[in-house]
Amino acid sequence: MANYRPEMTDEGLHRLHTTIVLDEFGEPRELSLTGERPLTIYLDKREIVTLMTMGAQPELLTLGYLRNQGLVEQLEDIIAIQVDWDVEAVAVTTRQARTDLDQVLSKRTVTSGCGQGTMFGNVMDSLNKLTLQCPSFSAESIYQALDGVTEYNKMYKQAGAVHGCALCTANKTDIFVEDVGRHNAVDAISGWMWLNDISGDDKVFYTTGRLTSEMVIKVAQMQVPLLLSRSGVTEMGLRLAKQIGIGMVARAKGKHFLVYNGQDQFHSN
Amino acid sequence: MANYRPEMTDEGLHRLHTTIVLDEFGEPRELSLTGERPLTIYLDKREIVTLMTMGAQPELLTLGYLRNQGLVEQLEDIIAIQVDWDVEAVAVTTRQARTDLDQVLSKRTVTSGCGQGTMFGNVMDSLNKLTLQCPSFSAESIYQALDGVTEYNKMYKQAGAVHGCALCTANKTDIFVEDVGRHNAVDAISGWMWLNDISGDDKVFYTTGRLTSEMVIKVAQMQVPLLLSRSGVTEMGLRLAKQIGIGMVARAKGKHFLVYNGQDQFHSN
Repeated sequence: MANYRPEMTDEGLHRLHTTIVLDEFGEPRELSLTGERPLTIYLDKREIVTLMTMGAQPELLTLGYLRNQGLVEQLEDIIAIQVDWDVEAVAVTTRQARTDLDQVLSKRTVTSGCGQGTMFGNVMDSLNKLTLQCPSFSAESIYQALDGVTEYNKMYKQAGAVHGCALCTANKTDIFVEDVGRHNAVDAISGWMWLNDISGDDKVFYTTGRLTSEMVIKVAQMQVPLLLSRSGVTEMGLRLAKQIGIGMVARAKGKHFLVYNGQDQFHSN
Repeated sequence: MANYRPEMTDEGLHRLHTTIVLDEFGEPRELSLTGERPLTIYLDKREIVTLMTMGAQPELLTLGYLRNQGLVEQLEDIIAIQVDWDVEAVAVTTRQARTDLDQVLSKRTVTSGCGQGTMFGNVMDSLNKLTLQCPSFSAESIYQALDGVTEYNKMYKQAGAVHGCALCTANKTDIFVEDVGRHNAVDAISGWMWLNDISGDDKVFYTTGRLTSEMVIKVAQMQVPLLLSRSGVTEMGLRLAKQIGIGMVARAKGKHFLVYNGQDQFHSN
Protein backbone atom coordinates (compact mmCIF):
# COMPACT_ATOMS: atom_id res chain seq x y z
CA MET A 1 0.00 0.00 0.00
CA ALA A 2 2.87 2.33 -0.79
CA ASN A 3 0.58 4.78 -2.47
CA TYR A 4 -2.05 5.08 0.18
CA ARG A 5 -2.79 8.70 1.07
CA PRO A 6 -5.19 9.91 3.71
CA GLU A 7 -7.45 12.77 2.74
CA MET A 8 -5.45 15.85 3.56
CA THR A 9 -5.95 19.59 3.53
CA ASP A 10 -3.14 21.73 2.12
CA GLU A 11 -3.14 24.54 4.66
CA GLY A 12 0.52 25.46 4.86
CA LEU A 13 1.16 29.04 5.96
CA HIS A 14 3.81 30.83 3.99
CA ARG A 15 3.29 34.36 5.14
CA LEU A 16 6.15 36.38 6.61
CA HIS A 17 5.22 38.95 9.22
CA THR A 18 6.95 42.28 9.36
CA THR A 19 7.57 44.62 12.25
CA ILE A 20 9.33 47.90 12.90
CA VAL A 21 12.24 47.71 15.32
CA LEU A 22 14.67 50.37 16.58
CA ASP A 23 18.39 49.80 16.30
CA GLU A 24 20.88 50.80 19.01
CA PHE A 25 20.88 54.39 17.71
CA GLY A 26 17.10 54.61 17.94
CA GLU A 27 16.73 54.41 14.14
CA PRO A 28 13.71 52.47 12.86
CA ARG A 29 14.11 49.42 10.60
CA GLU A 30 11.59 47.13 9.03
CA LEU A 31 12.23 43.46 9.77
CA SER A 32 10.70 40.14 8.80
CA LEU A 33 9.49 37.89 11.59
CA THR A 34 8.93 34.16 11.64
CA GLY A 35 5.29 33.33 12.24
CA GLU A 36 4.44 31.10 15.18
CA ARG A 37 0.99 29.61 15.69
CA PRO A 38 -0.47 27.11 18.09
CA LEU A 39 -1.86 24.00 16.39
CA THR A 40 -3.89 21.64 18.55
CA ILE A 41 -4.01 18.03 17.37
CA TYR A 42 -7.29 16.19 17.85
CA LEU A 43 -7.13 12.44 17.29
CA ASP A 44 -10.66 11.11 16.75
CA LYS A 45 -11.98 14.16 18.62
CA ARG A 46 -9.60 13.66 21.54
CA GLU A 47 -7.31 16.61 22.26
CA ILE A 48 -3.73 15.34 22.22
CA VAL A 49 -1.28 18.22 22.23
CA THR A 50 -0.77 21.82 21.18
CA LEU A 51 2.34 22.37 19.09
CA MET A 52 3.81 25.79 18.43
CA THR A 53 4.64 25.86 14.74
CA MET A 54 5.50 28.14 11.86
CA GLY A 55 2.73 26.27 10.11
CA ALA A 56 4.36 25.66 6.74
CA GLN A 57 3.62 21.91 6.73
CA PRO A 58 0.89 21.33 9.32
CA GLU A 59 -0.36 18.07 7.78
CA LEU A 60 3.10 16.51 7.64
CA LEU A 61 3.88 17.76 11.13
CA THR A 62 0.72 16.11 12.43
CA LEU A 63 1.50 12.85 10.66
CA GLY A 64 5.06 12.75 11.94
CA TYR A 65 4.01 13.66 15.47
CA LEU A 66 1.47 10.85 15.63
CA ARG A 67 3.99 8.42 14.16
CA ASN A 68 6.91 9.38 16.40
CA GLN A 69 4.79 9.34 19.54
CA GLY A 70 3.43 5.94 18.61
CA LEU A 71 -0.16 7.18 18.64
CA VAL A 72 -1.01 5.72 15.24
CA GLU A 73 0.54 2.45 14.08
CA GLN A 74 0.12 2.55 10.33
CA LEU A 75 -0.49 5.25 7.77
CA GLU A 76 -3.42 3.23 6.43
CA ASP A 77 -5.20 3.65 9.77
CA ILE A 78 -5.64 7.34 9.02
CA ILE A 79 -8.65 8.41 6.98
CA ALA A 80 -8.24 12.18 7.05
CA ILE A 81 -6.09 15.03 8.34
CA GLN A 82 -7.91 18.34 8.31
CA VAL A 83 -6.21 21.55 9.34
CA ASP A 84 -8.34 24.60 10.16
CA TRP A 85 -6.33 27.68 11.11
CA ASP A 86 -9.50 29.58 12.09
CA VAL A 87 -9.65 27.41 15.16
CA GLU A 88 -5.91 26.59 15.18
CA ALA A 89 -6.64 22.90 15.15
CA VAL A 90 -6.10 19.77 13.11
CA ALA A 91 -8.64 16.96 13.20
CA VAL A 92 -7.30 13.47 12.54
CA THR A 93 -9.80 10.74 11.80
CA THR A 94 -8.76 7.09 11.97
CA ARG A 95 -10.56 3.93 10.91
CA GLN A 96 -10.93 2.73 14.43
CA ALA A 97 -10.53 5.16 17.32
CA ARG A 98 -8.20 3.77 19.98
CA THR A 99 -9.98 2.84 23.16
CA ASP A 100 -6.78 2.81 25.22
CA LEU A 101 -5.91 6.46 24.62
CA ASP A 102 -6.47 7.49 28.23
CA GLN A 103 -4.05 4.85 29.34
CA VAL A 104 -1.47 5.67 26.68
CA LEU A 105 -1.60 9.40 27.39
CA SER A 106 -1.39 9.09 31.15
CA LYS A 107 1.41 6.53 31.04
CA ARG A 108 3.23 8.89 28.79
CA THR A 109 3.24 11.67 31.32
CA VAL A 110 4.13 9.47 34.21
CA THR A 111 6.79 7.16 32.85
CA SER A 112 8.73 10.14 31.87
CA GLY A 113 6.60 12.45 29.86
CA CYS A 114 8.09 15.21 27.82
CA GLY A 115 11.72 15.84 28.55
CA GLN A 116 11.00 19.50 27.89
CA GLY A 117 11.41 18.61 24.29
CA THR A 118 10.16 15.17 23.57
CA MET A 119 9.11 11.80 24.91
CA PHE A 120 12.07 9.96 26.23
CA GLY A 121 11.50 6.93 28.47
CA ASN A 122 9.08 5.18 26.14
CA VAL A 123 11.59 5.31 23.36
CA MET A 124 14.71 4.10 25.14
CA ASP A 125 13.56 0.48 25.22
CA SER A 126 13.08 0.30 21.49
CA LEU A 127 16.44 2.02 20.96
CA ASN A 128 18.25 -0.82 22.64
CA LYS A 129 17.17 -3.08 19.80
CA LEU A 130 18.06 -0.57 17.10
CA THR A 131 21.30 -0.84 15.14
CA LEU A 132 22.12 1.17 12.06
CA GLN A 133 25.11 0.92 9.76
CA CYS A 134 26.88 4.20 9.05
CA PRO A 135 27.73 4.18 5.33
CA SER A 136 31.10 5.02 3.87
CA PHE A 137 31.25 8.79 3.22
CA SER A 138 33.68 11.34 1.87
CA ALA A 139 34.37 15.04 2.37
CA GLU A 140 32.98 15.50 -1.13
CA SER A 141 29.66 13.87 -0.22
CA ILE A 142 29.35 16.12 2.84
CA TYR A 143 30.04 19.22 0.74
CA GLN A 144 27.39 18.08 -1.74
CA ALA A 145 24.78 17.71 0.95
CA LEU A 146 25.71 21.10 2.41
CA ASP A 147 25.54 22.78 -0.99
CA GLY A 148 22.12 21.27 -1.54
CA VAL A 149 20.57 22.60 1.67
CA THR A 150 22.07 26.06 1.38
CA GLU A 151 19.53 27.06 -1.25
CA TYR A 152 16.70 26.07 1.04
CA ASN A 153 17.69 28.07 4.06
CA LYS A 154 15.62 31.02 2.91
CA MET A 155 13.30 31.57 5.87
CA TYR A 156 16.24 31.51 8.22
CA LYS A 157 18.02 34.08 6.14
CA GLN A 158 14.95 36.28 5.92
CA ALA A 159 13.68 36.16 9.45
CA GLY A 160 15.87 33.97 11.62
CA ALA A 161 14.51 32.26 14.70
CA VAL A 162 13.83 28.98 12.93
CA HIS A 163 15.55 25.65 12.62
CA GLY A 164 15.87 23.86 9.32
CA CYS A 165 16.05 20.12 8.77
CA ALA A 166 16.54 18.26 5.51
CA LEU A 167 16.66 14.76 4.15
CA CYS A 168 19.28 14.31 1.43
CA THR A 169 20.11 11.53 -1.03
CA ALA A 170 23.63 11.97 -2.41
CA ASN A 171 23.60 15.46 -3.90
CA LYS A 172 19.83 15.88 -3.86
CA THR A 173 17.79 17.51 -1.11
CA ASP A 174 14.62 15.41 -0.93
CA ILE A 175 12.80 17.65 1.50
CA PHE A 176 13.69 20.70 3.56
CA VAL A 177 11.46 21.81 6.44
CA GLU A 178 11.84 24.86 8.63
CA ASP A 179 10.01 25.47 11.87
CA VAL A 180 10.32 27.39 15.10
CA GLY A 181 11.40 24.21 16.87
CA ARG A 182 13.80 21.51 15.77
CA HIS A 183 11.44 18.80 16.89
CA ASN A 184 8.65 20.01 14.66
CA ALA A 185 10.93 20.09 11.63
CA VAL A 186 12.07 16.51 12.31
CA ASP A 187 8.52 15.35 12.87
CA ALA A 188 7.38 16.90 9.59
CA ILE A 189 10.14 15.07 7.72
CA SER A 190 9.16 11.85 9.43
CA GLY A 191 5.57 12.47 8.34
CA TRP A 192 6.72 13.03 4.76
CA MET A 193 8.70 9.77 4.79
CA TRP A 194 5.68 7.92 6.13
CA LEU A 195 3.34 9.40 3.57
CA ASN A 196 5.63 8.63 0.67
CA ASP A 197 6.91 5.30 1.98
CA ILE A 198 10.50 6.54 1.95
CA SER A 199 13.13 4.48 3.71
CA GLY A 200 15.92 6.28 5.58
CA ASP A 201 18.77 3.89 4.95
CA ASP A 202 20.39 5.65 1.98
CA LYS A 203 19.79 9.13 3.35
CA VAL A 204 21.67 11.87 5.15
CA PHE A 205 19.73 13.89 7.71
CA TYR A 206 20.77 17.55 7.96
CA THR A 207 19.82 19.99 10.70
CA THR A 208 20.80 23.55 11.56
CA GLY A 209 20.24 22.68 15.22
CA ARG A 210 22.34 20.99 17.84
CA LEU A 211 22.65 17.22 18.02
CA THR A 212 21.28 16.48 21.47
CA SER A 213 20.13 13.02 22.56
CA GLU A 214 16.56 13.78 21.50
CA MET A 215 17.58 14.62 17.96
CA VAL A 216 19.67 11.48 17.63
CA ILE A 217 16.77 9.38 18.93
CA LYS A 218 14.33 10.87 16.42
CA VAL A 219 16.68 10.33 13.51
CA ALA A 220 17.37 6.78 14.67
CA GLN A 221 13.63 6.14 14.67
CA MET A 222 13.63 7.26 11.05
CA GLN A 223 16.43 4.75 10.30
CA VAL A 224 18.73 7.39 8.82
CA PRO A 225 22.36 6.28 9.36
CA LEU A 226 24.20 9.61 8.84
CA LEU A 227 23.58 12.88 10.65
CA LEU A 228 24.91 16.27 9.62
CA SER A 229 24.61 19.47 11.65
CA ARG A 230 25.68 23.06 11.36
CA SER A 231 25.80 23.23 15.17
CA GLY A 232 27.44 21.28 17.98
CA VAL A 233 26.98 17.94 19.68
CA THR A 234 26.25 16.97 23.27
CA GLU A 235 28.01 14.13 25.04
CA MET A 236 24.85 12.03 25.24
CA GLY A 237 23.97 12.72 21.61
CA LEU A 238 27.37 11.34 20.67
CA ARG A 239 27.06 8.39 23.07
CA LEU A 240 23.73 7.38 21.52
CA ALA A 241 25.08 7.78 17.99
CA LYS A 242 27.95 5.45 18.91
CA GLN A 243 25.62 2.95 20.53
CA ILE A 244 23.26 2.82 17.56
CA GLY A 245 25.92 3.16 14.87
CA ILE A 246 24.92 6.50 13.36
CA GLY A 247 27.59 8.57 11.63
CA MET A 248 27.76 12.07 13.06
CA VAL A 249 29.23 15.12 11.35
CA ALA A 250 28.80 18.49 13.06
CA ARG A 251 29.96 22.10 13.04
CA ALA A 252 29.50 21.89 9.28
CA LYS A 253 29.67 25.31 7.67
CA GLY A 254 31.24 26.37 4.40
CA LYS A 255 34.22 24.12 3.83
CA HIS A 256 34.65 23.04 7.45
CA PHE A 257 33.16 20.16 9.38
CA LEU A 258 34.12 17.72 12.11
CA VAL A 259 33.45 13.97 12.14
CA TYR A 260 32.31 12.94 15.62
CA ASN A 261 31.27 9.39 14.86
CA GLY A 262 31.76 7.03 11.94
CA GLN A 263 35.41 8.03 11.58
CA ASP A 264 36.35 4.64 10.17
CA GLN A 265 33.82 5.15 7.40
CA PHE A 266 35.14 8.60 6.51
CA HIS A 267 37.68 9.34 3.82
CA SER A 268 38.81 12.90 3.31
CA ASN A 269 39.42 12.55 -0.42
CA MET B 1 9.60 33.23 55.47
CA ALA B 2 12.08 34.75 53.05
CA ASN B 3 14.90 32.66 54.42
CA TYR B 4 13.26 29.29 54.32
CA ARG B 5 15.42 26.70 52.59
CA PRO B 6 14.51 23.09 51.96
CA GLU B 7 17.20 20.53 52.67
CA MET B 8 19.14 20.30 49.43
CA THR B 9 22.00 18.29 48.05
CA ASP B 10 24.71 20.13 46.12
CA GLU B 11 25.24 17.70 43.28
CA GLY B 12 26.02 20.00 40.39
CA LEU B 13 28.06 18.37 37.64
CA HIS B 14 30.86 20.51 36.29
CA ARG B 15 32.80 18.01 34.30
CA LEU B 16 33.56 18.61 30.64
CA HIS B 17 33.82 15.55 28.45
CA THR B 18 36.38 15.34 25.70
CA THR B 19 36.37 13.43 22.45
CA ILE B 20 38.57 13.02 19.41
CA VAL B 21 37.04 14.20 16.15
CA LEU B 22 38.39 14.29 12.61
CA ASP B 23 38.35 17.53 10.65
CA GLU B 24 37.53 17.72 6.93
CA PHE B 25 41.09 16.73 6.05
CA GLY B 26 40.90 13.63 8.25
CA GLU B 27 43.17 15.21 10.90
CA PRO B 28 42.32 14.36 14.52
CA ARG B 29 41.47 17.08 17.05
CA GLU B 30 40.57 16.89 20.71
CA LEU B 31 37.31 18.68 21.53
CA SER B 32 35.32 19.45 24.64
CA LEU B 33 31.73 18.21 24.75
CA THR B 34 28.82 19.42 26.81
CA GLY B 35 27.58 16.72 29.17
CA GLU B 36 23.94 15.70 28.95
CA ARG B 37 22.28 13.48 31.53
CA PRO B 38 18.73 12.37 32.16
CA LEU B 39 17.37 13.48 35.53
CA THR B 40 14.06 11.97 36.60
CA ILE B 41 12.05 14.04 39.08
CA TYR B 42 10.13 12.12 41.74
CA LEU B 43 7.64 14.19 43.72
CA ASP B 44 6.76 12.34 46.92
CA LYS B 45 7.82 9.09 45.24
CA ARG B 46 5.68 9.78 42.14
CA GLU B 47 7.63 9.89 38.87
CA ILE B 48 6.89 13.22 37.17
CA VAL B 49 9.23 13.77 34.26
CA THR B 50 12.69 13.06 32.91
CA LEU B 51 14.63 16.17 31.94
CA MET B 52 17.77 16.06 29.80
CA THR B 53 20.22 18.38 31.49
CA MET B 54 23.87 19.38 31.65
CA GLY B 55 23.39 18.89 35.38
CA ALA B 56 25.19 21.97 36.67
CA GLN B 57 22.28 23.08 38.89
CA PRO B 58 20.01 20.06 39.31
CA GLU B 59 18.43 21.26 42.58
CA LEU B 60 17.53 24.69 41.17
CA LEU B 61 16.29 23.10 37.96
CA THR B 62 14.01 20.81 39.95
CA LEU B 63 12.70 23.68 42.06
CA GLY B 64 12.01 25.86 39.03
CA TYR B 65 10.38 23.02 37.12
CA LEU B 66 7.97 22.24 39.96
CA ARG B 67 7.21 25.95 40.36
CA ASN B 68 6.69 26.72 36.67
CA GLN B 69 4.52 23.66 36.13
CA GLY B 70 2.43 24.57 39.16
CA LEU B 71 3.15 21.24 40.85
CA VAL B 72 4.16 22.83 44.17
CA GLU B 73 2.49 26.01 45.39
CA GLN B 74 4.96 27.38 47.89
CA LEU B 75 8.64 26.89 48.60
CA GLU B 76 7.77 26.18 52.24
CA ASP B 77 5.83 23.08 51.15
CA ILE B 78 9.12 21.43 50.19
CA ILE B 79 11.07 19.60 52.87
CA ALA B 80 13.93 18.20 50.82
CA ILE B 81 15.42 17.98 47.32
CA GLN B 82 17.86 15.12 46.98
CA VAL B 83 19.77 14.51 43.76
CA ASP B 84 21.45 11.15 43.21
CA TRP B 85 23.31 10.87 39.92
CA ASP B 86 23.97 7.14 40.47
CA VAL B 87 20.32 6.56 39.70
CA GLU B 88 19.89 9.78 37.65
CA ALA B 89 17.05 10.90 39.87
CA VAL B 90 15.99 13.64 42.21
CA ALA B 91 13.64 12.91 45.10
CA VAL B 92 11.47 15.80 46.25
CA THR B 93 9.70 15.46 49.58
CA THR B 94 6.85 17.78 50.49
CA ARG B 95 5.00 18.33 53.77
CA GLN B 96 1.81 16.91 52.39
CA ALA B 97 1.84 14.82 49.25
CA ARG B 98 -0.78 15.99 46.75
CA THR B 99 -3.64 13.58 46.39
CA ASP B 100 -4.78 15.11 43.09
CA LEU B 101 -1.56 14.41 41.21
CA ASP B 102 -3.11 11.85 38.90
CA GLN B 103 -5.71 14.36 37.88
CA VAL B 104 -3.22 17.21 37.48
CA LEU B 105 -0.84 15.11 35.40
CA SER B 106 -3.48 13.67 33.12
CA LYS B 107 -5.18 17.02 32.57
CA ARG B 108 -1.81 18.38 31.67
CA THR B 109 -1.30 15.95 28.85
CA VAL B 110 -4.77 16.24 27.52
CA THR B 111 -5.55 19.92 27.69
CA SER B 112 -2.48 20.55 25.71
CA GLY B 113 0.43 18.79 27.22
CA CYS B 114 3.91 19.62 26.23
CA GLY B 115 4.14 21.82 23.17
CA GLN B 116 7.31 19.96 22.30
CA GLY B 117 9.00 22.34 24.68
CA THR B 118 6.73 23.23 27.51
CA MET B 119 3.23 23.24 28.90
CA PHE B 120 1.16 25.73 27.07
CA GLY B 121 -2.61 25.69 27.47
CA ASN B 122 -2.64 25.65 31.25
CA VAL B 123 -0.60 28.79 31.31
CA MET B 124 -2.48 30.90 28.76
CA ASP B 125 -5.39 31.60 31.10
CA SER B 126 -3.18 33.04 33.81
CA LEU B 127 -1.33 35.11 31.19
CA ASN B 128 -4.48 36.99 30.33
CA LYS B 129 -4.45 38.49 33.79
CA LEU B 130 -0.75 39.30 33.72
CA THR B 131 0.48 42.83 33.00
CA LEU B 132 4.04 43.99 33.41
CA GLN B 133 5.50 47.46 33.02
CA CYS B 134 8.55 47.68 30.78
CA PRO B 135 10.98 50.05 32.53
CA SER B 136 12.78 52.94 30.89
CA PHE B 137 16.07 51.68 29.44
CA SER B 138 19.03 53.04 27.51
CA ALA B 139 21.58 51.70 25.05
CA GLU B 140 24.11 52.05 27.86
CA SER B 141 22.09 49.82 30.19
CA ILE B 142 21.82 47.15 27.47
CA TYR B 143 25.59 47.28 26.88
CA GLN B 144 26.17 46.93 30.62
CA ALA B 145 24.00 43.84 30.82
CA LEU B 146 25.72 42.36 27.76
CA ASP B 147 29.18 43.05 29.17
CA GLY B 148 28.16 41.36 32.39
CA VAL B 149 27.03 38.11 30.81
CA THR B 150 29.96 37.84 28.39
CA GLU B 151 32.26 36.66 31.17
CA TYR B 152 29.87 33.90 32.06
CA ASN B 153 29.51 32.35 28.64
CA LYS B 154 32.39 30.01 29.28
CA MET B 155 30.77 26.60 28.72
CA TYR B 156 29.39 27.78 25.43
CA LYS B 157 32.79 28.97 24.35
CA GLN B 158 34.44 25.75 25.44
CA ALA B 159 32.02 23.18 24.16
CA GLY B 160 29.06 24.83 22.45
CA ALA B 161 25.69 23.08 22.24
CA VAL B 162 24.29 24.86 25.30
CA HIS B 163 22.04 27.81 25.92
CA GLY B 164 22.83 30.38 28.57
CA CYS B 165 20.32 32.45 30.52
CA ALA B 166 21.02 35.17 33.06
CA LEU B 167 19.21 37.45 35.44
CA CYS B 168 20.77 40.90 35.62
CA THR B 169 20.26 43.93 37.88
CA ALA B 170 21.68 47.07 36.26
CA ASN B 171 25.33 46.19 35.56
CA LYS B 172 25.40 43.09 37.77
CA THR B 173 24.75 39.52 36.64
CA ASP B 174 22.85 37.96 39.53
CA ILE B 175 22.91 34.43 38.20
CA PHE B 176 23.97 32.79 34.96
CA VAL B 177 22.85 29.26 34.09
CA GLU B 178 23.79 27.17 31.09
CA ASP B 179 22.08 24.01 30.01
CA VAL B 180 21.49 21.87 26.94
CA GLY B 181 17.97 23.30 26.67
CA ARG B 182 16.79 26.88 27.04
CA HIS B 183 13.84 25.76 29.13
CA ASN B 184 16.04 24.11 31.70
CA ALA B 185 18.17 27.22 32.07
CA VAL B 186 15.07 29.38 32.57
CA ASP B 187 13.61 26.92 35.06
CA ALA B 188 16.84 26.86 37.08
CA ILE B 189 16.80 30.67 37.29
CA SER B 190 13.17 30.55 38.35
CA GLY B 191 14.13 28.04 41.05
CA TRP B 192 16.92 30.33 42.26
CA MET B 193 14.52 33.28 42.46
CA TRP B 194 12.06 31.19 44.44
CA LEU B 195 14.71 29.91 46.83
CA ASN B 196 16.11 33.36 47.48
CA ASP B 197 12.80 35.22 47.40
CA ILE B 198 13.98 37.42 44.54
CA SER B 199 11.43 39.54 42.71
CA GLY B 200 11.78 40.01 38.97
CA ASP B 201 10.52 43.55 38.64
CA ASP B 202 13.87 45.40 38.60
CA LYS B 203 15.60 42.73 36.53
CA VAL B 204 16.64 42.09 32.95
CA PHE B 205 16.43 38.53 31.68
CA TYR B 206 19.14 37.57 29.18
CA THR B 207 19.21 34.49 26.98
CA THR B 208 21.44 33.26 24.18
CA GLY B 209 18.37 31.52 22.72
CA ARG B 210 15.51 32.64 20.55
CA LEU B 211 12.55 34.50 21.98
CA THR B 212 9.69 32.18 21.10
CA SER B 213 6.29 32.31 22.78
CA GLU B 214 7.34 29.75 25.36
CA MET B 215 10.32 31.79 26.47
CA VAL B 216 8.23 34.95 26.80
CA ILE B 217 5.64 33.05 28.84
CA LYS B 218 8.23 31.68 31.24
CA VAL B 219 9.83 35.07 31.76
CA ALA B 220 6.40 36.66 32.27
CA GLN B 221 5.68 34.06 34.96
CA MET B 222 8.87 35.25 36.65
CA GLN B 223 7.59 38.87 36.47
CA VAL B 224 10.69 40.13 34.68
CA PRO B 225 9.71 43.17 32.53
CA LEU B 226 12.70 43.34 30.14
CA LEU B 227 14.00 40.57 27.89
CA LEU B 228 17.34 40.55 26.12
CA SER B 229 18.46 37.94 23.58
CA ARG B 230 21.47 37.31 21.40
CA SER B 231 19.16 35.56 18.92
CA GLY B 232 15.95 36.38 17.07
CA VAL B 233 12.28 36.72 17.85
CA THR B 234 9.21 34.93 16.58
CA GLU B 235 6.00 36.71 15.70
CA MET B 236 4.07 35.14 18.58
CA GLY B 237 6.87 35.83 21.04
CA LEU B 238 6.60 39.49 20.07
CA ARG B 239 2.81 39.44 20.17
CA LEU B 240 2.82 38.06 23.71
CA ALA B 241 5.47 40.56 24.83
CA LYS B 242 3.27 43.37 23.50
CA GLN B 243 0.16 41.94 25.16
CA ILE B 244 1.85 41.57 28.56
CA GLY B 245 3.99 44.72 28.34
CA ILE B 246 7.44 43.17 28.35
CA GLY B 247 10.30 45.11 26.75
CA MET B 248 12.07 43.00 24.14
CA VAL B 249 15.58 43.56 22.81
CA ALA B 250 17.04 40.95 20.48
CA ARG B 251 19.89 40.24 18.07
CA ALA B 252 22.10 41.74 20.76
CA LYS B 253 25.77 41.07 20.05
CA GLY B 254 28.77 43.32 20.54
CA LYS B 255 27.59 46.89 20.02
CA HIS B 256 24.47 46.01 18.06
CA PHE B 257 20.94 45.25 19.15
CA LEU B 258 17.37 45.79 18.00
CA VAL B 259 14.44 46.96 20.14
CA TYR B 260 11.35 44.91 19.25
CA ASN B 261 9.07 46.04 22.03
CA GLY B 262 9.15 48.82 24.60
CA GLN B 263 10.37 51.32 22.00
CA ASP B 264 8.74 54.23 23.86
CA GLN B 265 10.75 53.35 26.93
CA PHE B 266 14.03 53.23 25.01
CA HIS B 267 16.48 56.11 24.69
CA SER B 268 19.58 55.62 22.62
CA ASN B 269 21.73 57.96 24.70
